[in-house]
Amino acid sequence: MEDILRKVQDGTMSIDEAKKLLATYEDLGFAKVDHHRQKRQGFPEIIFGEGKTAEQIITILEAMKARQSDVLITRLSEEKANQILRVHPELTYAKVAEIMYWKAEKKQTVSDNYIAIVCAGTSDLRVAEEAAITAEVLGSNVKRIYDVGVAGIHRLLDQAPVIQQATASVVVAGMEGALPSVVGGLVSHPVIAVPTSIGYGANFHGLSALLTMLNSCASGISVVNIDNGFGGAYSAVLIDRLAKGIK
Amino acid sequence: MEDILRKVQDGTMSIDEAKKLLATYEDLGFAKVDHHRQKRQGFPEIIFGEGKTAEQIITILEAMKARQSDVLITRLSEEKANQILRVHPELTYAKVAEIMYWKAEKKQTVSDNYIAIVCAGTSDLRVAEEAAITAEVLGSNVKRIYDVGVAGIHRLLDQAPVIQQATASVVVAGMEGALPSVVGGLVSHPVIAVPTSIGYGANFHGLSALLTMLNSCASGISVVNIDNGFGGAYSAVLIDRLAKGIK
Amino acid sequence: MEDILRKVQDGTMSIDEAKKLLATYEDLGFAKVDHHRQKRQGFPEIIFGEGKTAEQIITILEAMKARQSDVLITRLSEEKANQILRVHPELTYAKVAEIMYWKAEKKQTVSDNYIAIVCAGTSDLRVAEEAAITAEVLGSNVKRIYDVGVAGIHRLLDQAPVIQQATASVVVAGMEGALPSVVGGLVSHPVIAVPTSIGYGANFHGLSALLTMLNSCASGISVVNIDNGFGGAYSAVLIDRLAKGIK
Amino acid sequence: MEDILRKVQDGTMSIDEAKKLLATYEDLGFAKVDHHRQKRQGFPEIIFGEGKTAEQIITILEAMKARQSDVLITRLSEEKANQILRVHPELTYAKVAEIMYWKAEKKQTVSDNYIAIVCAGTSDLRVAEEAAITAEVLGSNVKRIYDVGVAGIHRLLDQAPVIQQATASVVVAGMEGALPSVVGGLVSHPVIAVPTSIGYGANFHGLSALLTMLNSCASGISVVNIDNGFGGAYSAVLIDRLAKGIK
Amino acid sequence: MEDILRKVQDGTMSIDEAKKLLATYEDLGFAKVDHHRQKRQGFPEIIFGEGKTAEQIITILEAMKARQSDVLITRLSEEKANQILRVHPELTYAKVAEIMYWKAEKKQTVSDNYIAIVCAGTSDLRVAEEAAITAEVLGSNVKRIYDVGVAGIHRLLDQAPVIQQATASVVVAGMEGALPSVVGGLVSHPVIAVPTSIGYGANFHGLSALLTMLNSCASGISVVNIDNGFGGAYSAVLIDRLAKGIK
Amino acid sequence: MEDILRKVQDGTMSIDEAKKLLATYEDLGFAKVDHHRQKRQGFPEIIFGEGKTAEQIITILEAMKARQSDVLITRLSEEKANQILRVHPELTYAKVAEIMYWKAEKKQTVSDNYIAIVCAGTSDLRVAEEAAITAEVLGSNVKRIYDVGVAGIHRLLDQAPVIQQATASVVVAGMEGALPSVVGGLVSHPVIAVPTSIGYGANFHGLSALLTMLNSCASGISVVNIDNGFGGAYSAVLIDRLAKGIK
Amino acid sequence: MEDILRKVQDGTMSIDEAKKLLATYEDLGFAKVDHHRQKRQGFPEIIFGEGKTAEQIITILEAMKARQSDVLITRLSEEKANQILRVHPELTYAKVAEIMYWKAEKKQTVSDNYIAIVCAGTSDLRVAEEAAITAEVLGSNVKRIYDVGVAGIHRLLDQAPVIQQATASVVVAGMEGALPSVVGGLVSHPVIAVPTSIGYGANFHGLSALLTMLNSCASGISVVNIDNGFGGAYSAVLIDRLAKGIK
Amino acid sequence: MEDILRKVQDGTMSIDEAKKLLATYEDLGFAKVDHHRQKRQGFPEIIFGEGKTAEQIITILEAMKARQSDVLITRLSEEKANQILRVHPELTYAKVAEIMYWKAEKKQTVSDNYIAIVCAGTSDLRVAEEAAITAEVLGSNVKRIYDVGVAGIHRLLDQAPVIQQATASVVVAGMEGALPSVVGGLVSHPVIAVPTSIGYGANFHGLSALLTMLNSCASGISVVNIDNGFGGAYSAVLIDRLAKGIK
Repeated sequence: MEDILRKVQDGTMSIDEAKKLLATYEDLGFAKVDHHRQKRQGFPEIIFGEGKTAEQIITILEAMKARQSDVLITRLSEEKANQILRVHPELTYAKVAEIMYWKAEKKQTVSDNYIAIVCAGTSDLRVAEEAAITAEVLGSNVKRIYDVGVAGIHRLLDQAPVIQQATASVVVAGMEGALPSVVGGLVSHPVIAVPTSIGYGANFHGLSALLTMLNSCASGISVVNIDNGFGGAYSAVLIDRLAKGIK
Repeated sequence: MEDILRKVQDGTMSIDEAKKLLATYEDLGFAKVDHHRQKRQGFPEIIFGEGKTAEQIITILEAMKARQSDVLITRLSEEKANQILRVHPELTYAKVAEIMYWKAEKKQTVSDNYIAIVCAGTSDLRVAEEAAITAEVLGSNVKRIYDVGVAGIHRLLDQAPVIQQATASVVVAGMEGALPSVVGGLVSHPVIAVPTSIGYGANFHGLSALLTMLNSCASGISVVNIDNGFGGAYSAVLIDRLAKGIK
Repeated sequence: MEDILRKVQDGTMSIDEAKKLLATYEDLGFAKVDHHRQKRQGFPEIIFGEGKTAEQIITILEAMKARQSDVLITRLSEEKANQILRVHPELTYAKVAEIMYWKAEKKQTVSDNYIAIVCAGTSDLRVAEEAAITAEVLGSNVKRIYDVGVAGIHRLLDQAPVIQQATASVVVAGMEGALPSVVGGLVSHPVIAVPTSIGYGANFHGLSALLTMLNSCASGISVVNIDNGFGGAYSAVLIDRLAKGIK
Repeated sequence: MEDILRKVQDGTMSIDEAKKLLATYEDLGFAKVDHHRQKRQGFPEIIFGEGKTAEQIITILEAMKARQSDVLITRLSEEKANQILRVHPELTYAKVAEIMYWKAEKKQTVSDNYIAIVCAGTSDLRVAEEAAITAEVLGSNVKRIYDVGVAGIHRLLDQAPVIQQATASVVVAGMEGALPSVVGGLVSHPVIAVPTSIGYGANFHGLSALLTMLNSCASGISVVNIDNGFGGAYSAVLIDRLAKGIK
Repeated sequence: MEDILRKVQDGTMSIDEAKKLLATYEDLGFAKVDHHRQKRQGFPEIIFGEGKTAEQIITILEAMKARQSDVLITRLSEEKANQILRVHPELTYAKVAEIMYWKAEKKQTVSDNYIAIVCAGTSDLRVAEEAAITAEVLGSNVKRIYDVGVAGIHRLLDQAPVIQQATASVVVAGMEGALPSVVGGLVSHPVIAVPTSIGYGANFHGLSALLTMLNSCASGISVVNIDNGFGGAYSAVLIDRLAKGIK
Repeated sequence: MEDILRKVQDGTMSIDEAKKLLATYEDLGFAKVDHHRQKRQGFPEIIFGEGKTAEQIITILEAMKARQSDVLITRLSEEKANQILRVHPELTYAKVAEIMYWKAEKKQTVSDNYIAIVCAGTSDLRVAEEAAITAEVLGSNVKRIYDVGVAGIHRLLDQAPVIQQATASVVVAGMEGALPSVVGGLVSHPVIAVPTSIGYGANFHGLSALLTMLNSCASGISVVNIDNGFGGAYSAVLIDRLAKGIK
Repeated sequence: MEDILRKVQDGTMSIDEAKKLLATYEDLGFAKVDHHRQKRQGFPEIIFGEGKTAEQIITILEAMKARQSDVLITRLSEEKANQILRVHPELTYAKVAEIMYWKAEKKQTVSDNYIAIVCAGTSDLRVAEEAAITAEVLGSNVKRIYDVGVAGIHRLLDQAPVIQQATASVVVAGMEGALPSVVGGLVSHPVIAVPTSIGYGANFHGLSALLTMLNSCASGISVVNIDNGFGGAYSAVLIDRLAKGIK
Repeated sequence: MEDILRKVQDGTMSIDEAKKLLATYEDLGFAKVDHHRQKRQGFPEIIFGEGKTAEQIITILEAMKARQSDVLITRLSEEKANQILRVHPELTYAKVAEIMYWKAEKKQTVSDNYIAIVCAGTSDLRVAEEAAITAEVLGSNVKRIYDVGVAGIHRLLDQAPVIQQATASVVVAGMEGALPSVVGGLVSHPVIAVPTSIGYGANFHGLSALLTMLNSCASGISVVNIDNGFGGAYSAVLIDRLAKGIK
């Protein structure tokens, strides 16, 4: 800061420039976050679609156009998606994942790295796809290993080599949520466990799977919120970027 | 009933005999339970030791002597066990299982049948042993497959053949309680899952494992109360008896 | 394994044969499960209908045709059932149980054995019927003892002899869920307790009945998930098969 | 009120008398409670012993002496009881019930009425005795029907006639707490259900029994707090008094 | 029993008569319940309407006609009520209470006794009316004291004398459920507290009010299930009958 | 900021001064908090004693000496207090409140304002005293209105005028926690409700009282954590200061 | 009281006057509340709209007309609002806040005081607006600081000076509910925290945010019920009035 | 596999070699885990000390000596540690962290990478130190940023640059657990949140902090079990290794 002030004193820096720099400094601790993540790293702007009307989302999209950012809208019902598509036909809607996105053609860092998206049953598909498409839009390669629940352990073991070669796994499971424990015992990379609300009876809307994952006896597992495929993918992408040497 | 009454009318049955028979009939619906289970089937008298003083237990044991029954006392602390052993040195105390028992030398039905007692970690040992010794005292053979938690799935798979040959499995697990789901997928006999209170943090004294087991996506699994190794074994023994042709 | 390899060395076994055998061995621990249960034992393929579209189920049915398996679809709403019936009129839909199934004419092992399906109130009917029809489709005889809740204990006691002669009981109850405790005290075979979500107020969607059953002071009771009539029946059928001498 | 004021105006009532009367009137809505219940009805002063020191209780007892009231102290540990007995040897301590009391010799309304105190197991004894002695000190006759849990339904049925003749039942049960439902179905008088914290695992310190009782499908059952034998008895005594014609 | 048998032996009693008598004896313990309560005491048959179709209820009503019983149907939606009224126009539907009933003109025991139905707010009306009409149909007089929540304590105190003269109070409250505690401190008769699910946020569908009532520091309060106005009234009527000298 | 920079450019402000000002500005948002509250307002340094050793607290006290601040240590067991008193005999320990403090002689703003500390029962005394002494040490007058639980509503009403004249009430209650609702209906100032963990059974360590208070139907009530007498008093003191015109 | 009585005795006061005065005294403890708050302080009559029909609300409005009070109706759906507007077009409906109100033109105390309504995200808007409009209708100035969640801490810090100058803050947050803790650390006035039910997964309808706020490590925070923007504003207005010197 | 078999057929591979290879292959899916992680990566053997006796741990240590592995024992009380130290004085015990370890002198990959261990308050120290020492023993550099709770946000912001330069953060917080949300908004690397059981009242042994973290509105946060400092560090180390290019 002294430096800037000295230059202002010297007349070698205009007040406006100094203001901007100091403001930048001011903001560096916080606002940097947005720029660092979203601009420099090529991360898209992310909109949580649930609880927002199509109109509200369209307004946000207009505001973003000025900044020419990529876009990722999660938890977007098909109905709202169709309303938005009428105005923004350039966006893509992934129906199963309930995600809408737009991604500029960019020179992506070519990499063999990939994130394994592992899921227990076909009913966990929505959450798994939310994770998979999020990871792809955020710039990671993805391999999907679906329907490998622990009650038929051979299906999982057959896929073990593919999972083991990933830089991170996002493991999605409902009901008893035991899959991350078994995957965690098979791999040596970080596992992000995503409990889903799929189940019935004493599942309590995903609480059962959530507790299972938090109590996992396997090491290297951390957990995100119930049905939070987006959050699981986001953490995995940050890890994948570190593995690619991006910081 | 008509039969008995007719015989009384005919004079071919005394009133006392009729009374006893009718009383027996009366009681057949309820009291039979005790006799059927505990006398005819050679089941021991079972005492839940927790919350009873050593003195109370000794009093019950005296009362039982008259009936010359076998004895099984569960949840018995070592301290109380020692007090009882001073009076009843003929009893055996299994320290890990916290079980005390006495079993008459009987001609046991020789059988190759056995119950698999499977447990996830060494900390589940108390409950697993409660199950194992209960099953043995109740007359079943037992094979112990311990320390085969799902985070090292190969340890379990190596033991799969032994588990698969059992007539029933009692699967004991704490923490995330995922083991019964995997075992359930490997076997074609009934699995009794026993959650344990082993764990910490969001384990909530076994609630996590309990919910996991209730929500298992594998079929053929039913669950008993947290830490209830006795209950798990009891159900398994009833199954094993059916498999032996005892009804 | 040494044996097989030695034969390959000796030239007495072809590489293909060895591969298959070793593969079989490999798979024996896991894939056997499906075949053992579903093919050899004449168990149908089971589809959990909830959360699957009629289209998805029809696709699965096509895939299964190749394997000519029996079929059991649980938790299937009437609406979806009608859609499927238009394509597969050979299937049967049990409306109360919300189950659809197809069963080949087979020489079933004739047996006097039966499973008692006991339920507390008329509102538990859906779950009780899910259990009853599941058991029948899986090959067991069934006797239905309905509407015998504990608040009118004589209704239950009148039926006690029928329940006592079963190889296993599936006891379905909502509200306070006390029925399995009383049944458990009357019989000497395994009781599978099924809590239902029927009730109101502090029932908490079946939690009350679930806790009651887990805490039962009667022995020989194990519990499945809330409303899981299928799961209760599945365990009971495994027990019934053992009693018939099928392993 | 007008009456009193008019008399004051007339000079037929002194100001002091009027003040007292009006104060009485004032208090009639609230303070009456204490007097009505505790003085006129011969109810003792009741002290909740838990969380009070022996010294505090002794101080309260001194204050009460002036009013020469009967005394009932609940939840009093033996240690504190002994401290108090040294100062007040005229009091009686019921060890199992953890109750201390003093009751003046009074002409009690002779009555055949009694309250049935029913309990499921020997471990519920402390709470059952708290109820029984409370009821006796509050002036009701009591019949104890203990150890009649639902897993051995015949024990309960044998005692049914005794329970049925009571004016009210206090039914104490831990574990699954099913006893009040069955009793409720056998009697036509009000049943006060008292859940106890006896149990283990998923009993959750009496929550299981509490929920069971609240969800009872039998009519005429109301519930008090976990382990609240005193509260159960208090309600039953109020009912018994009404039945005796005391209001 | 000996008596009957002796008469059979003597020939002074036919086998059929003896069978009937013994059967009666058999049933006395249980079946008496229904007859005692519902026939002798003039209690109506009670049908829980929720979860039953209009058709099912009509069928039950037909079956009951033979027995010419009074009728009380609780938790009956207006839609279902209208369907039933088309077939049974003789029934009365109380819309707020969601209760349908039919009551024969009988010589009711004339009595000044009444039950106070006290409720906290206008939103608790449905449950309060369920209690009030239930009590009336079951044969008790009722006084309604509505909208006397504790946040405006004077409204309650103004009504205190009316409440105090009742034989029992049914106190209905949602939100924080504090009303029974205050009423309990004002009266000397039994209070039945009925928590309602009215409230929002951390009310948790009545759990808050339920816990408040169970933890009440006032004596003489017992609690029924959330929204269970019927249950509260039923207990109160049993008490009121005892106060009238009916047993 | 522009102002400061312009002055630096003009040479009317030195770089050091500017740095300090800008730094001050920087810190104004955060560091001000401590100074504003603790220095300028004469608030003492507050130490949460639970989970800290006597040694750790003594070390903190040494560090504070330099700043010559007042001191308030909450949740301090008598044992630890005695250890500290040996080193710092100038501190005062309030045993019931488990609070230790030191307060400089200052010219306190003389004021008739006071905070009412209202509590339901004698068992809530520790928390009530924690609130009372906290408020006094923080500079407010306090009036204690204790043992005025809602089950004896007249005791509370007798004290209503004293409570009504306060600037804020801190209402402490365990068990059913109904007191704040009634107080809230009697006063027109802000009520801070403090649930206590006093109670038993379904009190769940204060959860019952907490929910009651959150669901209060009276307006003007806000709630702090269970047993958090300190927090309740702190909020009340902030209000009292505003009422005194201190901001 | 003596005074009044003496005057009656003296004949200097008529009986009617005395009755009224004594009655007034009688009521002073309770009824004063309504008058004090709602009449003298210019507070509007407040109606909780949820669970009331439009017809019921219109009836209440008619009754209020006689008293010519201001009106505030919370939790009013747009549909019901429109029905009411047809009859009472003079009322205003705030759609986002779901509040309807009418406020007479009055000489409001001019004041620079204001309440800060701070909210974390755009989805908390309904609750924040309920708070803001409530505060305004109750007579306080309001500044809205919206969308300043803790994940972008700079947005909040930029607004810190505005928040710090308020007399009280109402801080509204869903999801993890961390905002009040950070605001609490920045200001020296009372903070009323309002958890919202916004969130998903393990949010449990606002329970997560509620617990966060109750456990806040910042001092001076108290909490109201989930989504209770009205309650938060009400407490803040009471504080704001004290700061203005209104008591 | 064909390759190996062909070589055996060709005689170019011995049966023993083939067996070993196939066995290795067999095990590759599972046993590789242990070797990969613990042998090749230089990870120590990890023992969970809680619930194991000092004797049991010594036995395990003997068994490990043969394999000459590094050692990490977590959750080890000082008492047990002292017992072990008597036998194994070469081990180091970190008292605050309750961790015992032994680490061979190895050529560690020199790296500037580090993990930030951030904690909210001094009471979270045990868990933070468990994380810090775990990370160090597992081979990562660590920077400790302690006592930076959100209620004094400036303390955290002052440390922001140090946290931002880390490859991963382990953020430990009790009470309301808001710290990870704020840190998550400041950094662009993965954050592992560790809730602690520190707190009181409605903290519910860490549940409050756990829910807060799962519901965080900041992206890139995943959560481990309550008090699981070890688990948090383990995941962070896996990430740090990826960032170093170790896979």
